[in-house]
Amino acid sequence: MRQLTVLKIGGELIQEPEKLSAVLTHFTALQGAKILVHGGGRDATALSEQMGVIPQMIDGRRVTDATQLEIATMVYAGKVNTQLVARLSAYGEKALGINGSDLGIIQCNKRPVVPVDFGYVGDITTVNGSTLDELISLGICPVFSAITSDLKGQLLNTNADTVATAIAKAILSDFSVRLVYVMGIPGILADITNPLTLIPKLSFDQYLNLKASGRLSGGILPKLSNAFEALKAGVSEVIIANETTLISGKYTELCL
Amino acid sequence: MRQLTVLKIGGELIQEPEKLSAVLTHFTALQGAKILVHGGGRDATALSEQMGVIPQMIDGRRVTDATQLEIATMVYAGKVNTQLVARLSAYGEKALGINGSDLGIIQCNKRPVVPVDFGYVGDITTVNGSTLDELISLGICPVFSAITSDLKGQLLNTNADTVATAIAKAILSDFSVRLVYVMGIPGILADITNPLTLIPKLSFDQYLNLKASGRLSGGILPKLSNAFEALKAGVSEVIIANETTLISGKYTELCL
Repeated sequence: MRQLTVLKIGGELIQEPEKLSAVLTHFTALQGAKILVHGGGRDATALSEQMGVIPQMIDGRRVTDATQLEIATMVYAGKVNTQLVARLSAYGEKALGINGSDLGIIQCNKRPVVPVDFGYVGDITTVNGSTLDELISLGICPVFSAITSDLKGQLLNTNADTVATAIAKAILSDFSVRLVYVMGIPGILADITNPLTLIPKLSFDQYLNLKASGRLSGGILPKLSNAFEALKAGVSEVIIANETTLISGKYTELCL
Repeated sequence: MRQLTVLKIGGELIQEPEKLSAVLTHFTALQGAKILVHGGGRDATALSEQMGVIPQMIDGRRVTDATQLEIATMVYAGKVNTQLVARLSAYGEKALGINGSDLGIIQCNKRPVVPVDFGYVGDITTVNGSTLDELISLGICPVFSAITSDLKGQLLNTNADTVATAIAKAILSDFSVRLVYVMGIPGILADITNPLTLIPKLSFDQYLNLKASGRLSGGILPKLSNAFEALKAGVSEVIIANETTLISGKYTELCL
């Protein structure tokens, strides 16, 4: 079966030119088909501040109102996506930015406003795996931002980890898929204060234990839940790494 | 030979939702293959003002420094391109935004800094017609912003009229090409103050006469020079219209 890597990079990496270069160089050298998925939240926050716009927050989470959606679209689909495609092209990749409604690849529903109205947030309903396969068969390396749409003309903002997972799951019938999340942490640590406690292979039971004991908390929990979901769906390898461990191989691999 | 329309819309149309809808509905209903090219200068000026950035000007022309390039990229490739693709998708088109280095379709050189350094401005050297043909053969409707690159990792800003002309010329071996510029004017007027003097067919000699007599001046001159160049290169039909005359057919057609 053909091999394919879906690599997801976060907003913090995008703001670090040297680290980003290391990851893109590694990505370009990978064998097999490749898809890049990126965030960009930090750049969006910076633009929002520069424009003098204060985002509305509910329970510590940002509401994507019309202005915030426009900012996210400009930053993710404009600045970040275009720059990443430019850099991959310079490395010889046949890169293609995919944003919003492009080719109808990702279809979303706007999230219901009950119980909480988070605004123009998109929950993925379908990823068109056959169109994606068509592009990959042309030697194309798709580069996805997390700007999606309802395919009725409304752009939406989706979590980039969720986009990566949904894409990985959509092409399982055509490829053996490796899903790599490059984050701000080297991998999953048994003791968050000690990098020497990195867990090379994290099982689902271990994850549940770490969660129950409170040693894992905050933003990593939905990411891991998402990642285990991909593994359960048939993704052959799921990796949590940062720019250093991605290259050294000393990252965390998830297993069931 | 297969028919293809390249339709270019300017920044002023993009800010007028109803007029834009009329043009996109017309575009969607066109027979044959289609490519949309868009500007977005007015939105870029608005964002620049909101960010408190004052563009540097030389001889009344804006200099594309690093900040202005970033603004142009966010507005053209982010906001405008993504929204146009979303709207065309909602009309049932298999639309795909093409920006910057996407698939290496447009290759530019950064304009020389002598005699005047206009910054990150791209002069088109090559348009990859075969990649474009490959996309069109898949039933795709490419939507081009005027953000280009040198394919060495540097994004550049190119005039959108020039992008439209270069694209039209690059696919002449595969298609019979119709090139339509939708502008803020109904067509070319013999007397700029009187809409009844619209010239249905403008020959190159007439154009030179109008120019010599001073009845045509300003920004329309490079646009027409550009448009006649396309006609000379073999584009079968070149039209200057606004959203109303585009639909009524009472526009100006150029002829040699």
